[in-house]
Amino acid sequence: MLDQAVIEAILAAKQAKKVSYEEIAGVLGRHPVWVASLIYRQATASSEEASQLAAYLGLAPEVETAIQTSSLKGSLEQIVPVDPLIYRFYEIMQVYGMPMKAVIHEMFGDGIMSAIDFTIDIDKVEDPKGDRVKVVFEGKFLPYKKW
Amino acid sequence: MLDQAVIEAILAAKQAKKVSYEEIAGVLGRHPVWVASLIYRQATASSEEASQLAAYLGLAPEVETAIQTSSLKGSLEQIVPVDPLIYRFYEIMQVYGMPMKAVIHEMFGDGIMSAIDFTIDIDKVEDPKGDRVKVVFEGKFLPYKKW
Amino acid sequence: MLDQAVIEAILAAKQAKKVSYEEIAGVLGRHPVWVASLIYRQATASSEEASQLAAYLGLAPEVETAIQTSSLKGSLEQIVPVDPLIYRFYEIMQVYGMPMKAVIHEMFGDGIMSAIDFTIDIDKVEDPKGDRVKVVFEGKFLPYKKW
Amino acid sequence: MLDQAVIEAILAAKQAKKVSYEEIAGVLGRHPVWVASLIYRQATASSEEASQLAAYLGLAPEVETAIQTSSLKGSLEQIVPVDPLIYRFYEIMQVYGMPMKAVIHEMFGDGIMSAIDFTIDIDKVEDPKGDRVKVVFEGKFLPYKKW
Amino acid sequence: MLDQAVIEAILAAKQAKKVSYEEIAGVLGRHPVWVASLIYRQATASSEEASQLAAYLGLAPEVETAIQTSSLKGSLEQIVPVDPLIYRFYEIMQVYGMPMKAVIHEMFGDGIMSAIDFTIDIDKVEDPKGDRVKVVFEGKFLPYKKW
Amino acid sequence: MLDQAVIEAILAAKQAKKVSYEEIAGVLGRHPVWVASLIYRQATASSEEASQLAAYLGLAPEVETAIQTSSLKGSLEQIVPVDPLIYRFYEIMQVYGMPMKAVIHEMFGDGIMSAIDFTIDIDKVEDPKGDRVKVVFEGKFLPYKKW
Amino acid sequence: MLDQAVIEAILAAKQAKKVSYEEIAGVLGRHPVWVASLIYRQATASSEEASQLAAYLGLAPEVETAIQTSSLKGSLEQIVPVDPLIYRFYEIMQVYGMPMKAVIHEMFGDGIMSAIDFTIDIDKVEDPKGDRVKVVFEGKFLPYKKW
Amino acid sequence: MLDQAVIEAILAAKQAKKVSYEEIAGVLGRHPVWVASLIYRQATASSEEASQLAAYLGLAPEVETAIQTSSLKGSLEQIVPVDPLIYRFYEIMQVYGMPMKAVIHEMFGDGIMSAIDFTIDIDKVEDPKGDRVKVVFEGKFLPYKKW
Amino acid sequence: MLDQAVIEAILAAKQAKKVSYEEIAGVLGRHPVWVASLIYRQATASSEEASQLAAYLGLAPEVETAIQTSSLKGSLEQIVPVDPLIYRFYEIMQVYGMPMKAVIHEMFGDGIMSAIDFTIDIDKVEDPKGDRVKVVFEGKFLPYKKW
Amino acid sequence: MLDQAVIEAILAAKQAKKVSYEEIAGVLGRHPVWVASLIYRQATASSEEASQLAAYLGLAPEVETAIQTSSLKGSLEQIVPVDPLIYRFYEIMQVYGMPMKAVIHEMFGDGIMSAIDFTIDIDKVEDPKGDRVKVVFEGKFLPYKKW
Repeated sequence: MLDQAVIEAILAAKQAKKVSYEEIAGVLGRHPVWVASLIYRQATASSEEASQLAAYLGLAPEVETAIQTSSLKGSLEQIVPVDPLIYRFYEIMQVYGMPMKAVIHEMFGDGIMSAIDFTIDIDKVEDPKGDRVKVVFEGKFLPYKKW
Repeated sequence: MLDQAVIEAILAAKQAKKVSYEEIAGVLGRHPVWVASLIYRQATASSEEASQLAAYLGLAPEVETAIQTSSLKGSLEQIVPVDPLIYRFYEIMQVYGMPMKAVIHEMFGDGIMSAIDFTIDIDKVEDPKGDRVKVVFEGKFLPYKKW
Repeated sequence: MLDQAVIEAILAAKQAKKVSYEEIAGVLGRHPVWVASLIYRQATASSEEASQLAAYLGLAPEVETAIQTSSLKGSLEQIVPVDPLIYRFYEIMQVYGMPMKAVIHEMFGDGIMSAIDFTIDIDKVEDPKGDRVKVVFEGKFLPYKKW
Repeated sequence: MLDQAVIEAILAAKQAKKVSYEEIAGVLGRHPVWVASLIYRQATASSEEASQLAAYLGLAPEVETAIQTSSLKGSLEQIVPVDPLIYRFYEIMQVYGMPMKAVIHEMFGDGIMSAIDFTIDIDKVEDPKGDRVKVVFEGKFLPYKKW
Repeated sequence: MLDQAVIEAILAAKQAKKVSYEEIAGVLGRHPVWVASLIYRQATASSEEASQLAAYLGLAPEVETAIQTSSLKGSLEQIVPVDPLIYRFYEIMQVYGMPMKAVIHEMFGDGIMSAIDFTIDIDKVEDPKGDRVKVVFEGKFLPYKKW
Repeated sequence: MLDQAVIEAILAAKQAKKVSYEEIAGVLGRHPVWVASLIYRQATASSEEASQLAAYLGLAPEVETAIQTSSLKGSLEQIVPVDPLIYRFYEIMQVYGMPMKAVIHEMFGDGIMSAIDFTIDIDKVEDPKGDRVKVVFEGKFLPYKKW
Repeated sequence: MLDQAVIEAILAAKQAKKVSYEEIAGVLGRHPVWVASLIYRQATASSEEASQLAAYLGLAPEVETAIQTSSLKGSLEQIVPVDPLIYRFYEIMQVYGMPMKAVIHEMFGDGIMSAIDFTIDIDKVEDPKGDRVKVVFEGKFLPYKKW
Repeated sequence: MLDQAVIEAILAAKQAKKVSYEEIAGVLGRHPVWVASLIYRQATASSEEASQLAAYLGLAPEVETAIQTSSLKGSLEQIVPVDPLIYRFYEIMQVYGMPMKAVIHEMFGDGIMSAIDFTIDIDKVEDPKGDRVKVVFEGKFLPYKKW
Repeated sequence: MLDQAVIEAILAAKQAKKVSYEEIAGVLGRHPVWVASLIYRQATASSEEASQLAAYLGLAPEVETAIQTSSLKGSLEQIVPVDPLIYRFYEIMQVYGMPMKAVIHEMFGDGIMSAIDFTIDIDKVEDPKGDRVKVVFEGKFLPYKKW
Repeated sequence: MLDQAVIEAILAAKQAKKVSYEEIAGVLGRHPVWVASLIYRQATASSEEASQLAAYLGLAPEVETAIQTSSLKGSLEQIVPVDPLIYRFYEIMQVYGMPMKAVIHEMFGDGIMSAIDFTIDIDKVEDPKGDRVKVVFEGKFLPYKKW
């Protein structure tokens, strides 16, 4: 099954059942962002997770099988995405990339924040002047190995 | 003064004085990431902030003047940066862009996280299996206006 | 339903009924440019707006459902569009980008014009030497937050 | 003289004299956006305008000469500029390009808004919820010639 | 109807009837290049032109309708086309772009040749050493407006 | 000598002597567009042409030598130039490329218009509604060789 | 018929009949590389060549018709092709482009090797250390016309 | 020494001595195209070749040293070069890439023509209808290894 | 048969039979990476290998035929792939490209590592701190030929 | 000090002293590839390593200081490098990317080979048919974290 067909099948089932990522997350015992990543074929389910999701949403067996295999990752089709919500992450990287690198190197030394041993959390911060989106990236610091 | 010359002048002064972004942040009463953004010409100082920084680092008057003007923003020269630390932010956008968009829309409705009314925080999360980098983005949710 | 299919379905219904964006705008109580944005899947309808539009144009239920969800925005497929009408907006940005930035910063300080809390108006200015197109962008000024 | 050197010379003189685009516009009897376009080498001065500007800002004769010649236009160096203020104009084109084209064609027929027989106005709209930037583009409608 | 389908339908009808652009041009009272532009969906027919073309080539009603609407212009899919005949126009622009700009500015002042109020003519110049292709572009000179 | 330095030296001499391309063309017995091409290093002078030009404009010997050598051609630095005058030639190729190809193939068979055995003429067509720019390309038709 | 379908139809017929480009070349009295160019829709057949090829391979009449029309040339879909055999030609151009240009200009003066009045030959040069591929390009030298 | 400076130094010495690639080739006992490749820093000289060239052209010791080191190869700065002579090689690859691949695979099996164990020869083929440029590439056939 | 269809057919058969690349490699007497390359249409099977694979996996005859022909190589569709596993190879080339070139030239002289007469091996290196992936590239050194 | 100046200073000192990466590696107790990475500013020295290298090569104090700071990594300036040795690594990624991903996922599960906790080794494998380059990448396997 092509990835796009898998994604559409799951999104249609989710919409039909009118459940949120949060509710699915409760069923699987996982975070809503990870669940969305799974549905968009950016993460891989264990067989148990796949059968839980399939049972909950009423997915076809080939969808249940498909989400247990790792796909060619990348959820976008553009080098610089134009969708305004997604573009803002690109803008943050372009504008604050060097300042963040400078601060991280000063705190940790030469290395990177892993994007694999990594989690994302998204929260709503209520504010009378307008609610705020809080996105938390947390990744293992990987120091450059010398050899 | 060209932006690049301003940046190099401040970085050289910072290195000569052997102070960290954190220490400069303490002097200005600002966050270290904002300070790094100011030094990399991605943020603009008030005249008071400019004179505090100039006094602390011993900057030339034209540098003090320059950091009070808004520059052409963008701290990188590449569309897809190859520096591994910075690239990971691009990878996160490419891999998790659609999942984050899906979750944010479900939590907030159609709109974006502002990258202007916006802050960044970076922390070290100590962990016996290896310390973790925690990057927090917080921006005002801007709903699409209808007209 | 794929966005492209939704757009084509609405455009076909609009063409069959021979109504203008202006007439649809009258029905919805919205501006014609916003209506065109909705039809091209760049804006999201409330359930009431969706049912009004569906009733007026005779749209299928899945179209009515689709326009209530936020799509991956971006109405073009090219990085630099070659259609002459659309390209002129690119040319204006390339030629007048720096001058507009200079004047806006002088009037407002460091920040941007929001493209989210934002409206577009288009008018015809009659002129004996040839009518003129007047395009008005109005967006909230967002000053850069310091932290 | 290279365009970049001309631009820097005028900007330095303007900064030294601490005058705004608005004030220079008053001297030349022109709009501040056109004045900024002249300074950024996107417009060409008559000899009278050039001598007025040179006298007012104390510019060198070769600068006065240079601004009377048409340059290779384009004030940016990037295909998709990352500066957030300028990028928003790109985003508007990408998101609202098709809707604006649809509405303009419906109002005017097949043709374009000229970006040459064209003016820009920028205003501040005061608003208790935050001031708004109003940008007005007005260009002659050019219908496609048939032959 | 998709543009590509419209184009293929007309080309097939033209090939079946074995008529040239010149012959169709005679029927419509238009120039062959304009006729080819219409068939490739780069120009828009009046209802009279559409019905003449439909009658002459035996086109379906939806094709007749389609060619009266303005399409998203651009007849190529590549930024730099590799087809040798079309590429030569790109090469001419790259090699002779600056010289042509210099001569046009010297003859006309700062402004452009319109590509909208514009015609193309193509002729064969017979020559014993090999016939020559003569392509004539004629567009209204548009001087930059000052404001 | 670098091409850019050669170009600047000749343009400065031309500006100092206040002569037009047309006047230089009269001296060399060549067309003004070819002369501009020579000055922008897109064409190569014979030793006689080089010495005539050097004598007329008072050029240094190394400039006289340089213009007799063929340079790496290409007068622009961008893949899609943003200068509005030059861009219009790109737009013509994008919009009318397929129609021109169709008409040329119908008139001449499979082959191309040479851009080497090729001339450009530029004229002003006076018109009460606004003068028109007439650009004539004439190139030898080269049929594809079969072997 | 779409070009891709024509190509696939001929390749399938060729594979079914198990004949080489060399054998087809013998039938048509043409060179195998030209024959392959014809099959990949980069060259145009005369009606006689088309009927010979159709008879030999048993092609459908619409294929026979299609190969008599000139297509939009370009046999690849990538700007820099990654197929190793084809890429080597790109590498040769990138590495040896300037040296070849220098030698050709020294031998012939300012001008080009035509890629239209042009032939390709490919041979096997037997060699005990490993056979060698010999590719011969021969094109008419076209000197730049002066005017 | 930077590559560009080395190249310019040798070209200036060659021009001063008024010798051709062919003459230098005679001195070194090498082919003129290889000599041009050496001068453009695409090939590496042995110490004997370097001292012969230095003696013949009167090169400085640091140039003699530099041409014995392998540089970062690539003689062009553009992905698709616009110089007409060099572009024709790109066009040949784009147009004839698939046909040449088809014929080479049929003659040799799956593999490539080496661009390393490789030579180039350039000849003038005299022809009353216009001389022809003959470019011969010869490279070892490298079959894909299976493992 | 299109390459994509061939790949999907084989992957589906492999998944249905629940066999690994290693197991298929054992059947064919080849390395698992070569087997994966064959399945992804980057390598070509002999008729014997094709029939072994077809028999083992139960492939259709047209699949068996297809894998004996060389395809247009390149297993990815992006210039810079975003899949994190594959991107890391791009990152290694960008970061370590110059250092590897420097060391290889010092060890071998001017030339390259062949990617054709070339093998890949992949191993798991067990490590209590986390297993390691070992990728071994081995290619024939090809010295630049002088001529 | 700019990175490029640091690199050139060290390479000049290394060339003057006529020592190899291997010899420097012996002094520092590191691998030659890591040493080359340090010299090309892709790795960071400890203060002890910096002083050893400075003492051995006679480097200036500012070079010694510079190599202790982490630079903006990326040793190349091109998205797809044309240097043949470096390009082969790009080709390997393009051709064998999917096969390697398939095999690694089968051996390790969903995750990546780290390019940070990572080493490179380069060896010469002597072979009577021509020596072979052996490049060994070894990186920690990082499984995707679920959360």
